[in-house]
Amino acid sequence: MADILSSLRSLMASHSPPLDALVVPSEDYHQSEYVSARDKRRAFVSGFTGSAGLALITKNEALLWTDGRYFLQAEQQLSDKWRLMRMGEDPAVEIWIFTNLPEDSAVGIDFWCISVETAQKWKSLFAKKQQNLVPTTKNLVDEVWNDQPQAEINPVHVHPLKFSGRSVSDKLKDLRENLKKEKARAIIITTLDEVVWLFNIRGGDVSYSPVVHAFVIVTRKSAFFYVDERKLSSEVKTYMEENNITVKDYGAVSSDVALLASNQLTSAKETQSNGATEPEDSSHKIWVDPRCCYSLYSKLSGDQVLLQQSPLALPKSLKNPVEMEGLKNAHIRDGAAIVQYFAWLDKQMQEIYGASGYFKESESQNSKKHLGDLKLTEVSVSDKLEEFRAAKEHFRGLSFPTISSVGPNGSIIHYEPEAKTCAELDPNSMYLCDSGAQYLDGTTDITRTVHFGKPSEHEKRCYTAVLKGHFALGNARFPNGTTGHSLDVLARVPLWSYGLDYRHGTGHGIGSYLNVHEGPHSISFRPGLSIPLQASMTVTDEPGYYEDGKFGIRLENVLIIKEAATQFNFANKGYLEFEHITWAPYQTKLIDVSLLLPEEIKWVNTYHANCRDILAPYLSEPEKAWLNQATEPIAA
Amino acid sequence: MADILSSLRSLMASHSPPLDALVVPSEDYHQSEYVSARDKRRAFVSGFTGSAGLALITKNEALLWTDGRYFLQAEQQLSDKWRLMRMGEDPAVEIWIFTNLPEDSAVGIDFWCISVETAQKWKSLFAKKQQNLVPTTKNLVDEVWNDQPQAEINPVHVHPLKFSGRSVSDKLKDLRENLKKEKARAIIITTLDEVVWLFNIRGGDVSYSPVVHAFVIVTRKSAFFYVDERKLSSEVKTYMEENNITVKDYGAVSSDVALLASNQLTSAKETQSNGATEPEDSSHKIWVDPRCCYSLYSKLSGDQVLLQQSPLALPKSLKNPVEMEGLKNAHIRDGAAIVQYFAWLDKQMQEIYGASGYFKESESQNSKKHLGDLKLTEVSVSDKLEEFRAAKEHFRGLSFPTISSVGPNGSIIHYEPEAKTCAELDPNSMYLCDSGAQYLDGTTDITRTVHFGKPSEHEKRCYTAVLKGHFALGNARFPNGTTGHSLDVLARVPLWSYGLDYRHGTGHGIGSYLNVHEGPHSISFRPGLSIPLQASMTVTDEPGYYEDGKFGIRLENVLIIKEAATQFNFANKGYLEFEHITWAPYQTKLIDVSLLLPEEIKWVNTYHANCRDILAPYLSEPEKAWLNQATEPIAA
Repeated sequence: MADILSSLRSLMASHSPPLDALVVPSEDYHQSEYVSARDKRRAFVSGFTGSAGLALITKNEALLWTDGRYFLQAEQQLSDKWRLMRMGEDPAVEIWIFTNLPEDSAVGIDFWCISVETAQKWKSLFAKKQQNLVPTTKNLVDEVWNDQPQAEINPVHVHPLKFSGRSVSDKLKDLRENLKKEKARAIIITTLDEVVWLFNIRGGDVSYSPVVHAFVIVTRKSAFFYVDERKLSSEVKTYMEENNITVKDYGAVSSDVALLASNQLTSAKETQSNGATEPEDSSHKIWVDPRCCYSLYSKLSGDQVLLQQSPLALPKSLKNPVEMEGLKNAHIRDGAAIVQYFAWLDKQMQEIYGASGYFKESESQNSKKHLGDLKLTEVSVSDKLEEFRAAKEHFRGLSFPTISSVGPNGSIIHYEPEAKTCAELDPNSMYLCDSGAQYLDGTTDITRTVHFGKPSEHEKRCYTAVLKGHFALGNARFPNGTTGHSLDVLARVPLWSYGLDYRHGTGHGIGSYLNVHEGPHSISFRPGLSIPLQASMTVTDEPGYYEDGKFGIRLENVLIIKEAATQFNFANKGYLEFEHITWAPYQTKLIDVSLLLPEEIKWVNTYHANCRDILAPYLSEPEKAWLNQATEPIAA
Repeated sequence: MADILSSLRSLMASHSPPLDALVVPSEDYHQSEYVSARDKRRAFVSGFTGSAGLALITKNEALLWTDGRYFLQAEQQLSDKWRLMRMGEDPAVEIWIFTNLPEDSAVGIDFWCISVETAQKWKSLFAKKQQNLVPTTKNLVDEVWNDQPQAEINPVHVHPLKFSGRSVSDKLKDLRENLKKEKARAIIITTLDEVVWLFNIRGGDVSYSPVVHAFVIVTRKSAFFYVDERKLSSEVKTYMEENNITVKDYGAVSSDVALLASNQLTSAKETQSNGATEPEDSSHKIWVDPRCCYSLYSKLSGDQVLLQQSPLALPKSLKNPVEMEGLKNAHIRDGAAIVQYFAWLDKQMQEIYGASGYFKESESQNSKKHLGDLKLTEVSVSDKLEEFRAAKEHFRGLSFPTISSVGPNGSIIHYEPEAKTCAELDPNSMYLCDSGAQYLDGTTDITRTVHFGKPSEHEKRCYTAVLKGHFALGNARFPNGTTGHSLDVLARVPLWSYGLDYRHGTGHGIGSYLNVHEGPHSISFRPGLSIPLQASMTVTDEPGYYEDGKFGIRLENVLIIKEAATQFNFANKGYLEFEHITWAPYQTKLIDVSLLLPEEIKWVNTYHANCRDILAPYLSEPEKAWLNQATEPIAA
């Protein structure tokens, strides 16, 4: 670590201008949450591998900001050269820079790796102290990273209509209508899931997310796709031609944005038919999402930019009937894999560890952890879970690194076990498993927490409080116009009554064979963008409770928002409700039934009866027997 | 009405510059919610008497904006010369002006009657269309209002320490520390409850609110009180001197703000001891709350103003132990008056209307409404309620116009019955009573809804849903940092499950012998200022349901926020909960017990048992017997 830091510091010193600080964010050129191996620059410099964070290197200090999900993990991974800055508790990075660095400081960052939104906010703050946000001439991390992985060259696939549900031409038509409505002559699309959603394609450039490293520019007449052409088969090239999409090299986007600025970007087709068409009206704006990289944005003059949320964000979140059907089917197959996994794990825990098992409650009597040579680890069992999933139709991989965590590791909210260092399963500890997969017809995300021995009363009480919050949110009805922020409290109140809480949001949208975290809406205690929840959005319902160094509990289902058939319709707003599409039992052993209300007991029993019916066709006889036992009705 | 409008339109035409529109807001020079008779200009021009609203008069149109509480009332009161604009549904007034009035329009308003916040927002919007917000040379409404009431000259009283709990010198000390902290050399206080709170005085210039029409300027060294001196007895003048408060004429505030701007405002005392003190550092700012009138603000240059919430708003909302004790005692006496009232009303309804009464459920068999010559009206019964209150220790008047509403009138959220036109009581209708009083030791506000005959199943279901929301909010625990906006949803979810809702906020702070509506916090579906709830604040819990033209239901208690003795204290945030300080039974006849959860039943029974114990000392034997029956435990 020290070597990387000193190498970076000498590059900072010899940079023109010399840099007082260097910012290394997590994001790639597309502001992605999950990035390719080559783009994990922040993890490379800091050693912290969580998905969210930002490194700041000054002449004398190295600081790493991350959020509450990762405090424990970062504490463990950062060397003593680094200082952990806790988001929400410590000052934000720009405030820290403003406060701690002198006037006239130069703060370097690769302008491809920072969004317009963030760059503008920082610049206006820094200006008050004559501090400058400076684009580095090259990416300095790439300069010092000797064995940096190569850029991924993975084939692009067409995502057929039977899964996407909507043609490219329809999507382009809607997009251009939005351009007209907002008096924009073009849009620059840099967010990867928007790129592949718009063109009904998928790729393999980033683990867990079937996207392609690419940019898109759509004008009123043409569509340009900036991508490494080696990723395109002749079949895909033909598909692009058929859809009137001009393919250009990934690197050409910079110069084309400059052409766009001077109203000179035209496709060959437009040029051929030049006599008939006029150039686009140059008075019209160029639409840029605030998440666009500052590098492209800075090629435009401020007054020609329409800086507002991409018109693809909302349509992408509103699932069409084909996507909805696919998501439901994918979640059924995925739920079956989860049941197979827990039934298998139950047997293993009894055989290898002498555990009382999923259904019975007694402490394991073994002084040694496992009985023979066999042992289970967080990674070996999550590999088994992947096996069950991989056997399912349309499986294409995982949707995020499986969080398979025993005991104390469960309290690291986004824990990622590694084969060499991970913990062994333990019959006397809670086990939290948050996992999901990519299927051609949908993306999944589910969390269950279980105990194969004798949970404490405290663990049961906490599990029950989490379940009550999960229930209260997932079964709420609410009028159109309600934001996820407004509903968030419903999931927390049962925990709050004990003085407990959790340091993460309660729900996120989920893609249709796309990103597992998808906006623009969410369910969070942060007010955020305040996008109202709408019918046909997906959203997760995942409250939790984490006791540092002891255990973690989280329960997560995916929900689809739909119109509610309420008895009344006050103020003609229309009312909405959630449909659970995740199917896997809650562990009834962990529920303190005395804390449940009658309506909660009824709901658990109905949900469990549905699990039985829906999953049975995908299970073997022993698995069915296990599920039947797991879904026995509970009673007060 | 037509005469007023045409008179105003000719004044608009002859104004210099000529006005294309005139805005007449509800507020007085102090942006008060409740105003004196003289200041009811908006009600005078429009005929709409609700407490909130704004009139806009253009050359050809007359429009009246008000919020959801008043839609029905405004529909009834506005003549056909007026168009009702529904806040939250129709465009806001400034958007309407911007959209509908031509470029270069002059929009007139009395700059004393508009806040800095609002004026700045409007000005920046209007500027985009070269529209101007113009100060009228005089208040044009006053010009056309022949029988406008005179300004009130009511005596100012000292509010003794045994009720206020904190000395003026302590309050001034804290205030000056805030000035220092924010590098301000002075503050201009225009909000009336802040004026009287700071000086521990009360007055009688405005109905329902014991305030004094006055301004205050506090510098690091001096305090100035701008008031009509006729309101001050020699005793009060001595009190002012003792507290180093310089009394000046109400009208002198304008010129003194100008002096303050040029750093020349000093008290006689300062001038006398001139040798020893230097003038205040002119580089320091002058603190102005965004609610200050634009007229005073415009005497300062923008760069010398610190425009942020008054440092008195929060301390005033945090009740000290003496105020807290007073509030609790006032609410006990007030609850006794409410019980006396309902016991009395129950008897009357049976005797005069042959109603089955508060406890029994059957329809009145009379073909005529009342049996003899006697009859009860919304106003006559609320006068009786005032009688019960007036007999209580420390009573000083009502805290707002009593909302005493039968059947359909209950659906007018802020209904104000008038003796000549109000409805008669009806044994077959719901009756909603929202009322409160001013006592020397505290301000009260309570709503109960009752039925003296046979309520429908639908009315019971709605009452029960409102009760469930009232319970869910009032019994929540939550961490420090939580806003009222976050909690608001708890009160709505039971109604939302039926597709029902209400068009008003759920709670407001309440003063200590001061305004019945007090900020800076609230519990509302609007994100607002997002002031976190804090221990020792007061707040009401008042969900409702209103069926237009049929009935209204609201249940309201006052709560005090206090630290919760939770079992855990996650993230060391500290957890809070509410203490109910309102004591009066819910009508158990209106509760559909089958819809209540066990914990809700238990809570109702405990609350009712407390009502019995707490109120008994204030009641006669027959009243006690009535209360005992009203508080009989309910069971599933």
